Amino acid sequence: MDNRISFSSDYTKGAHPKILERLSQINFEQQNGYGTDDYCKSAADKIKKACKCPDADVFFLVGGTQTNQTVIDMILEPYEGVVAATTGHVAAHEAGAIEFSGHKVLTLPRFDTTLQDGVAVHSDQIGKIRAEDLRKFIDSFYADESHEHMVFPGAVYISHPTEYGTLYSKTELEEISKVCHYFDMPLFLDGARLGYGLMSTKTDVTLEDIARLVDVFYIGGTKVGALFGEAVVFPKGVPTRHPVPIIKQHGALLAKGWLLGLQFDTLFTDNLYLDISKNAIDMAELLREELVKRGYKLFIDSPTNQQFIIMEDEKLKSLSEHVRYGFWEKIDPDHTVIRLATDWATTENDIRKLMQYM
Amino acid sequence: MDNRISFSSDYTKGAHPKILERLSQINFEQQNGYGTDDYCKSAADKIKKACKCPDADVFFLVGGTQTNQTVIDMILEPYEGVVAATTGHVAAHEAGAIEFSGHKVLTLPRFDTTLQDGVAVHSDQIGKIRAEDLRKFIDSFYADESHEHMVFPGAVYISHPTEYGTLYSKTELEEISKVCHYFDMPLFLDGARLGYGLMSTKTDVTLEDIARLVDVFYIGGTKVGALFGEAVVFPKGVPTRHPVPIIKQHGALLAKGWLLGLQFDTLFTDNLYLDISKNAIDMAELLREELVKRGYKLFIDSPTNQQFIIMEDEKLKSLSEHVRYGFWEKIDPDHTVIRLATDWATTENDIRKLMQYM
Amino acid sequence: MDNRISFSSDYTKGAHPKILERLSQINFEQQNGYGTDDYCKSAADKIKKACKCPDADVFFLVGGTQTNQTVIDMILEPYEGVVAATTGHVAAHEAGAIEFSGHKVLTLPRFDTTLQDGVAVHSDQIGKIRAEDLRKFIDSFYADESHEHMVFPGAVYISHPTEYGTLYSKTELEEISKVCHYFDMPLFLDGARLGYGLMSTKTDVTLEDIARLVDVFYIGGTKVGALFGEAVVFPKGVPTRHPVPIIKQHGALLAKGWLLGLQFDTLFTDNLYLDISKNAIDMAELLREELVKRGYKLFIDSPTNQQFIIMEDEKLKSLSEHVRYGFWEKIDPDHTVIRLATDWATTENDIRKLMQYM
Amino acid sequence: MDNRISFSSDYTKGAHPKILERLSQINFEQQNGYGTDDYCKSAADKIKKACKCPDADVFFLVGGTQTNQTVIDMILEPYEGVVAATTGHVAAHEAGAIEFSGHKVLTLPRFDTTLQDGVAVHSDQIGKIRAEDLRKFIDSFYADESHEHMVFPGAVYISHPTEYGTLYSKTELEEISKVCHYFDMPLFLDGARLGYGLMSTKTDVTLEDIARLVDVFYIGGTKVGALFGEAVVFPKGVPTRHPVPIIKQHGALLAKGWLLGLQFDTLFTDNLYLDISKNAIDMAELLREELVKRGYKLFIDSPTNQQFIIMEDEKLKSLSEHVRYGFWEKIDPDHTVIRLATDWATTENDIRKLMQYM
Repeated sequence: MDNRISFSSDYTKGAHPKILERLSQINFEQQNGYGTDDYCKSAADKIKKACKCPDADVFFLVGGTQTNQTVIDMILEPYEGVVAATTGHVAAHEAGAIEFSGHKVLTLPRFDTTLQDGVAVHSDQIGKIRAEDLRKFIDSFYADESHEHMVFPGAVYISHPTEYGTLYSKTELEEISKVCHYFDMPLFLDGARLGYGLMSTKTDVTLEDIARLVDVFYIGGTKVGALFGEAVVFPKGVPTRHPVPIIKQHGALLAKGWLLGLQFDTLFTDNLYLDISKNAIDMAELLREELVKRGYKLFIDSPTNQQFIIMEDEKLKSLSEHVRYGFWEKIDPDHTVIRLATDWATTENDIRKLMQYM
Repeated sequence: MDNRISFSSDYTKGAHPKILERLSQINFEQQNGYGTDDYCKSAADKIKKACKCPDADVFFLVGGTQTNQTVIDMILEPYEGVVAATTGHVAAHEAGAIEFSGHKVLTLPRFDTTLQDGVAVHSDQIGKIRAEDLRKFIDSFYADESHEHMVFPGAVYISHPTEYGTLYSKTELEEISKVCHYFDMPLFLDGARLGYGLMSTKTDVTLEDIARLVDVFYIGGTKVGALFGEAVVFPKGVPTRHPVPIIKQHGALLAKGWLLGLQFDTLFTDNLYLDISKNAIDMAELLREELVKRGYKLFIDSPTNQQFIIMEDEKLKSLSEHVRYGFWEKIDPDHTVIRLATDWATTENDIRKLMQYM
Repeated sequence: MDNRISFSSDYTKGAHPKILERLSQINFEQQNGYGTDDYCKSAADKIKKACKCPDADVFFLVGGTQTNQTVIDMILEPYEGVVAATTGHVAAHEAGAIEFSGHKVLTLPRFDTTLQDGVAVHSDQIGKIRAEDLRKFIDSFYADESHEHMVFPGAVYISHPTEYGTLYSKTELEEISKVCHYFDMPLFLDGARLGYGLMSTKTDVTLEDIARLVDVFYIGGTKVGALFGEAVVFPKGVPTRHPVPIIKQHGALLAKGWLLGLQFDTLFTDNLYLDISKNAIDMAELLREELVKRGYKLFIDSPTNQQFIIMEDEKLKSLSEHVRYGFWEKIDPDHTVIRLATDWATTENDIRKLMQYM
Repeated sequence: MDNRISFSSDYTKGAHPKILERLSQINFEQQNGYGTDDYCKSAADKIKKACKCPDADVFFLVGGTQTNQTVIDMILEPYEGVVAATTGHVAAHEAGAIEFSGHKVLTLPRFDTTLQDGVAVHSDQIGKIRAEDLRKFIDSFYADESHEHMVFPGAVYISHPTEYGTLYSKTELEEISKVCHYFDMPLFLDGARLGYGLMSTKTDVTLEDIARLVDVFYIGGTKVGALFGEAVVFPKGVPTRHPVPIIKQHGALLAKGWLLGLQFDTLFTDNLYLDISKNAIDMAELLREELVKRGYKLFIDSPTNQQFIIMEDEKLKSLSEHVRYGFWEKIDPDHTVIRLATDWATTENDIRKLMQYM
């Protein structure tokens, strides 16, 4: 048993106690299967209300890669690929799940980072794509005389927060949305950590904004208070006549769908989802403050629950005896970028413990 | 809220209370992700011990269709299909999940059922395949001069219990296993309801027999006491160097893998899995006794937790006001076959309630 | 070098001499690639005229399996399969090319053949599907409460002539077409041997009938006078915005597309396609006459260029020293069904030579 | 009819006259289907002899994209992708045919080109990958702790000549081969224009070198004297037990396989393939000389049959009234890179005609 404190990720713990409590309460109720139960209906209604999109279709899936694969397959024609940042989860860390479904991931160039005098220098765009780059990419695709021999850009994938903890501003989202809709391409927002984005003190983007600007997004449960589960929202309705067999075909239709419904019903009651998200942000800000106070250099100025710092390798070695962290990248021969993630259940005491070893 | 008592399936309830209890206990422990935690390790060890196959590889997946798709894709070459009964789950009820992975399901003819004087007449093979039919099928494949233009039979899929509640005898399994291994084809046993097969009073097949005779099988959790989860066992080891990316590629790698590990660890502690399976069998036998006593005709002489009876449509209509059942098939203009399933948590009281309406 | 005369198939020879002649004539003309040349345009125009469907889209592909795979992928939603006869080429002899594209082939039961007193007894439906069976199949699909967990019947595949040389009557085609359109399913007709069907003396189906009744079909060149090539016709237009990348994605876009255009342009000039098809029918009728005269039993009463007879195995052995034939099936321990195929270039002399050994 | 002279590509003409002549000669011989004929055997034997690899397996496919898709699917595990240059044909111009087969194309960064004082400045690596970059890429893949969640680099694709007309030196090939084999990754060489690479006056790479250094390659026919066709060579044998159903499954098994066999048999008799390849090189050198003489700036110093020059847009406009060329890229607001390709049949007279307009 590994008893070191862990800041390695935001999926190291179970679920908010209210979820466990309700699971116990309804354990012997008998539910209908495959998402046709009352909890799924109730959760969907609450989500639609929170998003202010009464015509939305809502589906509950189990995990992130599964959701990305299923959604992207739903919104693309067979000859289309999905545009994403080079650092996007679908491009880099899903073992080819998108290609397994027959679609190419078309990547927009990443923004490189360098270390200058021990300070990371990189674009504030890190992890993100730019509307302007997207437009150029698509323009140049259609300008290419042989584009019928190429993979059509059929949809755009963004993550918010990104894999680097960064966020889109409302203006940025609006601009990307405009480009997508000009070219009749659905915009898909991966919200595996959506709560942490919405509760950032640096954001001007609300859930309603997202529901208004994108064509499909999901509200992450796995990393934000649920045992597991992602709530997929198509604000204007799902673009296929038969979503259920598509979900089933991807192995993504949970028999006891109410386990998902109940969790999201709980998270979307009395603002729980946002309240516990806020905890992660508060703890991340405290964490950052403490780190800066101790002279640590931030790799990125992240406004969400993932904090990235540059560590001397020697120091890191001793840290790892007491603390689990996320290895991010080797940035020079003597330094490593690590990720420290807070979550919905992180306590001030956890931060204090961590600081003993920093 | 549908408050009618339900015998419609064996996945209408949550999990055995011990599982919920342990989930609560470890809720704030911090686990490593993707099945690399201690609970998965412990559960795998207990399963290997129960199967007496120390060299097995064990993986924990979320649901049945997902497991079937992933396993079949692991054991087939690209030009191979999987042989199954026409009634097999992979052939009939997975929305094409196997074909989605690029593989054909090669079906052995089903055994038709007719109604004679109100009594269903069908082969005792219902839901099953026969070693002899399998051998003939493969022989005739290789005898066909154009078989290089056909889909190669690359593996065999059986379910135990079958979708019709029936079971293979040890001799039948041995014969099928022999044919498979003669032709160098892995044998895959879908054990979504394995516990209910093992605890049938009519079986001579043990968990060890299965581990000895098949190349891969799974121990169903979703229908037998877990919230969700299927434990895949490759008794002689998994036949690919990199199972993890294959699982990930199918969207089947759960971030919080320990949720699966913990559940199976609990089920394989103190014989819990088999004990609760026995309850379903006891209740199914009671159910059958009561039904026969009341003059109901059994559609199949099922030795497991699924009981199939022939109902007059008029009677069925009034039953449905009080009871949820599984519609099976329309067998003649006035009669319908329905399924009544017991499970790990069915009580004598439930049976008694049901009998009020029969 | 195998110098035995061959009646084994209709793709043993090159092309009609006019095709070779024109290929030589234009050999050093410089054409645009990928089907954008003038010959493809001209051939398409002639085909549209012959079909009386001026709004058709016409594509030229290389071979039959490739065409079946590409067309079926074009007309199906991802969650749909294609309905076909169990004996259909897509179901039986394409090495899983349809499943490779992610789609299930849903088969309608074949019509078994038995040998009674040395005479084959089977349905005249052999190789075909019946409108009534199709309707029942689809009705029962939608009647099944769990059909969202099954593969949707999304299109219907028929071959004309079938793999057994049989033909649909106009009435049969109309009925199938009606069922398809009632359920909003495209009807796809595989015309790999279309010329031989159209020129049968037993048919009442014309090219215009086909263009009127089906949603997509192809005019086979490989087996009817071309070196290779199949002309795909969508009488009401192709149902995808971008057919070219789909064709390319299947590896089916020939760089020198004009090779296909020129061949079909030649075949559809001065009625050549039908004229040479008629030769195969004339020779098939002569062949049959001679066989019957000699007491051979026909396996099927085939109205097209493929003739199937029942041979004693001993006799067959000596025949095979002089003649290549198509092995069809072993029908009893002492008899074998063989196929003898005539083609666009078979001569009376060929038949005479064959008869020396019969 | 477009009567402008064309230098737009090397697939604008038919085949070497000897091929057409032999096609006519054997037109009414009766051949066995699917590549089991004598011409395929003879062609394979001649190719094996030319490559000095008697144990090779040789297959004949129809076109380039089809061949790339089929070969890559043959040599990869399901969880593997193929490494290629960003400019590689499989990465950029096959409409997602590789992803359609379920595999990701992992790209090594391209080498950008800039225009300085009207002169293109770029790496001599253009179109190629470097052994060192490949090694770094793979090293960093395995160094990444989460690489089991990523697409494994399973094989390497290079083209020779590249899409930019450039060539690998023998040393470069040896180094790439070494890296591939160190990591147990097959090396696949796309030789769609192989003849033009082998006959370049700037190369030190022979056919034998290629057969020795790579695991699979193909000898392009479509662009080098054949009507169509690519000869795939696995010098050490094909790595699957059943290549035929895989080829069939990709729609790539030509019924009249002898059309391919006969063409390659002709090309590999009396050195025809290399002789006609040399013509393209001679003409390309003459073309370049004339262009340089007239002051045109070369975009790349290409040693093969594709020549790339930088044109003023105004000049280009008038050129296009008389000449078909390949648009390559817009390099600045007033200049465009065009491709002028010679081929096996280009004459001095063709060059002279072109020069009238330059």
